[in-house]
Amino acid sequence: MVASELKAPPAANDTMFTLEQLAQQFGGEIVGDSACCIRGLAPLESAQPQHLSFLANPKYLAQLETTQAGAVLITRADLLKVKNRGARSFLVAPNPYAYFARVAQCFAAAQQLPALPGIHPSAVIDPSARIPATASIGPHVVIEANAVLGARARLEAHVYIGQGVTIGDDAHLSAQVTVYHGCTLGARTRIHAGAVIGADGFGFAPDFKGDTGEWVKIPQTGAVVLGDDVEIGANTTIDRGAMSDTVIEHGVKIDNLVQIAHNCRIGAYTVIAACAGIAGSTVIGRHCMIGGAVGIAGHLTLADRVIVTAKSGVSKSLSKPGVYTSAFPAIENAAWNRNAALMRNLDKMKARLKQLEALILTSQNK
Amino acid sequence: MVASELKAPPAANDTMFTLEQLAQQFGGEIVGDSACCIRGLAPLESAQPQHLSFLANPKYLAQLETTQAGAVLITRADLLKVKNRGARSFLVAPNPYAYFARVAQCFAAAQQLPALPGIHPSAVIDPSARIPATASIGPHVVIEANAVLGARARLEAHVYIGQGVTIGDDAHLSAQVTVYHGCTLGARTRIHAGAVIGADGFGFAPDFKGDTGEWVKIPQTGAVVLGDDVEIGANTTIDRGAMSDTVIEHGVKIDNLVQIAHNCRIGAYTVIAACAGIAGSTVIGRHCMIGGAVGIAGHLTLADRVIVTAKSGVSKSLSKPGVYTSAFPAIENAAWNRNAALMRNLDKMKARLKQLEALILTSQNK
Amino acid sequence: MVASELKAPPAANDTMFTLEQLAQQFGGEIVGDSACCIRGLAPLESAQPQHLSFLANPKYLAQLETTQAGAVLITRADLLKVKNRGARSFLVAPNPYAYFARVAQCFAAAQQLPALPGIHPSAVIDPSARIPATASIGPHVVIEANAVLGARARLEAHVYIGQGVTIGDDAHLSAQVTVYHGCTLGARTRIHAGAVIGADGFGFAPDFKGDTGEWVKIPQTGAVVLGDDVEIGANTTIDRGAMSDTVIEHGVKIDNLVQIAHNCRIGAYTVIAACAGIAGSTVIGRHCMIGGAVGIAGHLTLADRVIVTAKSGVSKSLSKPGVYTSAFPAIENAAWNRNAALMRNLDKMKARLKQLEALILTSQNK
Repeated sequence: MVASELKAPPAANDTMFTLEQLAQQFGGEIVGDSACCIRGLAPLESAQPQHLSFLANPKYLAQLETTQAGAVLITRADLLKVKNRGARSFLVAPNPYAYFARVAQCFAAAQQLPALPGIHPSAVIDPSARIPATASIGPHVVIEANAVLGARARLEAHVYIGQGVTIGDDAHLSAQVTVYHGCTLGARTRIHAGAVIGADGFGFAPDFKGDTGEWVKIPQTGAVVLGDDVEIGANTTIDRGAMSDTVIEHGVKIDNLVQIAHNCRIGAYTVIAACAGIAGSTVIGRHCMIGGAVGIAGHLTLADRVIVTAKSGVSKSLSKPGVYTSAFPAIENAAWNRNAALMRNLDKMKARLKQLEALILTSQNK
Repeated sequence: MVASELKAPPAANDTMFTLEQLAQQFGGEIVGDSACCIRGLAPLESAQPQHLSFLANPKYLAQLETTQAGAVLITRADLLKVKNRGARSFLVAPNPYAYFARVAQCFAAAQQLPALPGIHPSAVIDPSARIPATASIGPHVVIEANAVLGARARLEAHVYIGQGVTIGDDAHLSAQVTVYHGCTLGARTRIHAGAVIGADGFGFAPDFKGDTGEWVKIPQTGAVVLGDDVEIGANTTIDRGAMSDTVIEHGVKIDNLVQIAHNCRIGAYTVIAACAGIAGSTVIGRHCMIGGAVGIAGHLTLADRVIVTAKSGVSKSLSKPGVYTSAFPAIENAAWNRNAALMRNLDKMKARLKQLEALILTSQNK
Repeated sequence: MVASELKAPPAANDTMFTLEQLAQQFGGEIVGDSACCIRGLAPLESAQPQHLSFLANPKYLAQLETTQAGAVLITRADLLKVKNRGARSFLVAPNPYAYFARVAQCFAAAQQLPALPGIHPSAVIDPSARIPATASIGPHVVIEANAVLGARARLEAHVYIGQGVTIGDDAHLSAQVTVYHGCTLGARTRIHAGAVIGADGFGFAPDFKGDTGEWVKIPQTGAVVLGDDVEIGANTTIDRGAMSDTVIEHGVKIDNLVQIAHNCRIGAYTVIAACAGIAGSTVIGRHCMIGGAVGIAGHLTLADRVIVTAKSGVSKSLSKPGVYTSAFPAIENAAWNRNAALMRNLDKMKARLKQLEALILTSQNK
C-alpha cells in the first residue's frame, strides 16, 4: 500500500514564460523586450536576469537601479520615476504585487505534483458519502455517513470528515484536519494541517449551591459554515454554534492558531493574523484586519474596515472603520517596571494635581 | 472497510416532550398547560409555539411579552413580574438556564446517532490493552500496551492512546486526540479534536560556557491526571509533570488552544477560556474563572473563586477571591499612541509634579 | 495488527547507580560514601535515602539540613556553607542542575521501553522514500515520495511526512505530527504531538476595487529548516517561507502552541515559551529567551541574548542584549479600571501639569 498511488510523475522544473505570454494571461503593458524569458520570481535584491521581480512600494525605487532582474512589475507612476532603466524590461500594471502573486501561482502550479484523483485504499469511507471521481482522498482519511465532496476536492492523509459534512469544489484540506458533523465548506476552501472545524462551542450553565453542583453542558447544535475562497491556518479552531451556526463569509483568510468561538460571524475578505482569539457571538465586518494575538470579547459588533493592531484587546463594539490599539511596545525592563508602578497609582497622581490646582487658585484669589 | 460499521441507523427527528414529562424528569412547577408539546428549544426572540425558551436574566423581561415560544423556563420571582402571560405556559424553576441546558441535552441525545459498541477493523490495538465490549473504537485508532478503557468509552478516528493510559467510563475523545503514556482520564472525560494530553513539560537545564554548551533536557517522568467530568477543548495542550503529575480536578472545563504547563494543579469546577496559558507548577483554586488569553506565570497560587478577566497577565499569587485585571480596551490608534508614549514617561511627570508641590510649599512659607 | 509489534519487553524498574558510577560517567567529586546507591531522583523536600537530589540555588540551603536524600548534587561554594552534613553524601559539580538532568536521563532511558526498529504494517510509505533498517515507524504513519529518514529515526502513530522531507539521525516525532513537503529536520530533532512544520506562510496580495476583488495568494515556495537538537512542543506551528526558508538553528527549544511565521530565523540555543507568536521575517539572535505569550512583530531583528518577559509585545528591533517588558501584572479589577481610564487621558493630565507650571512661573515672576 503506497502513498504514491495517488501521485503523478514529478513535474518538470524548467517552467518558462515570456513577458508576452504573461501579458496575454494577466494583462499589463510591456515596456522593453516582450520576448524576455522568465524562469522564476525573486525579490529585487536577489533577482537574476531570468527572474521577474516587482516594485510595490516607491520607497524601494533605489533598488531598481541595481537589481539584476530581467523584468520588473511596476506601476505607471513609479516607472516614470526610474532614472536608469538599463537593460531591464518592465511589465506595467496597476497592482504589481497582486500581479506578482498570480505569476507566482503559475510557476507553483507548473512545478507542483498535482494530486491524482482517486481514493487511497487505506481510507475509510462510509458508503453513503458522495465522493466524485475527480476527488483525491489520501491515506487513512476517514469520511463518515452522508458527507458530500465537490469536484476535485483533495483530502490529504488522516483528514477526518464527520457525518453530513458538505465540501465545495476544489477544496484542499491538509493532513490531520478535523471537520465535525454537519459543517459546510465552500468552494476552494483551503485548510492547513491540524485545524479543527466544528468542535463544540464552550457553553455551560452553572448549577451550584455553595461548593457542590456542576457545570451543565449546553449542547452545541449549530454548525460551522465557511464561504467560498476561505483559507484557514494550521491548528486553528473554529467552534460550531450553540443553536445557530458560526459563519465565516467568503474570501476570509485566517492564520495559524486562531480561535473563533461559537456563533461568531466573520465578514467577507476579513483577514485574521495568528494567535488571535474571538469570543462567542461576536460579529466582525467585511474587509477588517485583525492583528496577531488580538483578543476580541464576546457579543460585540465590529464595523466594516476596522483594523485592530497586534496584541490589542477589544472589549467594546467598534462602530466606525479605523485603526484601534491597546498594546504597548516592550522597553527595557527597569524603565517599564518604574512606570508601570506609577500607572497603578495614576489616581493618586491625579488627586495631587487637583490639590495643586486648588492651592494655586486659592493663592491667586488672595 | 466502512466507517458506518460502528453507527446505528439515523435517529428520528421528531423528538417531543410534554411539559409534564419534563417536570417529572427535571422538577419544576408548571404554570399553564401541562400537556403543552415541546419539539425543540430556541431563544426568546426566535422561538415558535413548539419551542421551549428560557428567561435567565430579568433584563430580557420585555421579550417575554412578544415571544412566540409555547413555554418558557423562568424563576418564580421573574414570573411575578410578567404582566401579560398570553397563551404561554411556564415552567418555574430556580435555575432556568441550567434546566434549559438539561432539556437541550435530552433533545440532542434523542437526535444524535449513538456510537455503536465495537472496534473498527482498521484500529491498531495492543493485545494487552483492556477494551470493554461496550467501548466504541473508531477507524485508525491506535491503543498501546496496557491501556485500560472504561465502559462505553468512545474513541473517534485517529485517536492515539499511549502505553498504560487509563480512561474512565463514558469518556469521549474526538478525532486526532493524543494521550501520552501513563496518563489517567476520569469518568465522562470529554476531549475535543487535536488536543494533546501528556506531552513533555518544557524543562531544560542550561549548561553553557560562553557561546557553547547545551540545554540539557530534564526527563518529564510525571503524567497528567484528569478528574471526572473534565472537558477539554480542541487543540488544547496539557503537559505531563516533571517528577510528579499535572492534575486537573473534577468538573474543570477548558476551552480551545489553552496551554497548561507541567505540574500545574487546576482546582475543581474551574473554567478556563480559550487561548489562556498557565506556566509550570502553578496551583489554581476551585471555582475560578480564567478569561480568554489570560497568562499566568509559574509557581503561583490562586485562591478559590478568583476571576481573571480576559487578556490579563498574572505574575503574583492571588490569595483572595475577587476579580483581577491588567488589560486595556483598544481605542483609536492615534489617541492610544499619544497616551502610551506618556505612560513610558510617567516617572518624569511625577518628578515635575513633585517639583511643583515643593515650589508651592516654598512660596506659601514665604 | 498490533501496536506492540514494535515494542521491546517491559524494562526493569530497579535501575540503580552508585555515586562512583555516576562520577565516572558524568564527572564531579564525591564527598562521602562513593558506594552510596541511587535508585531515583527527587527534589530536596521529598527525597528519601535512595534518592539523589540537587541544590541549584543557595537560597534553599536550609532544606539541606532536613532533607532525607541519600546524596545531593551541589557546587563547591555551596557545600562550604552546609553546617550539618549529616549522613548525606555529596556529588560536587559546577552545575548541579544540569548534572541532575543528565542522571535523570539515565534513569528515564533505563526505565523506558525502547522503540524497536521496523515499520508497522499499517504505515503507508512511498517506495521512493529511504527508511533505514534502524528506524521505527509506528501505526498509520504516512511517508510520501523521496523522503529520507536518518538512522534510528522514530515516527509515532499517525505522523505525516511530506514529499522530499529529510529527517536527521535519532529524530523522534510524536503522534499526529505533520511535516510538509521539502522541510529538513536535523539530528535528534524532537517534535511533540500535533505540531505542524511547513504549512503555508500567511501571504496574500490585496487586489480590491471598493468592495469587490480578492486576496491573491502568494505561493509559499520556501521550506522549514530545523538544525540539530531542536525540540518543538505540542501543537506548535512553524510556517514555510515565501521564497526562501524559515530557519530554526541548532539547539533551539520551543514550547507548546507557539507560532513562528514564514521566513523567520531563530538563533541557536534560543528558547521560546508557550503561546508566543513571532510574525514573518523576524530574525531572533542566539541565546535569547522569549517568555510565554510574547508577541513579536514582523521584519524585526533581535540581538543575541535578548530576554523578553512573558506577555510582552515587541514592535521594534532590539539591538542590545537585555531584558525587555511591556506587560502589566493583574490587580483588583476596580483599581485597575480606575487607573486605566486615567491612562487614556494622560495627555490631558500632562496639559494640566504644564498649565500649572506656567502659572507658577508667572506668579513667581510678578
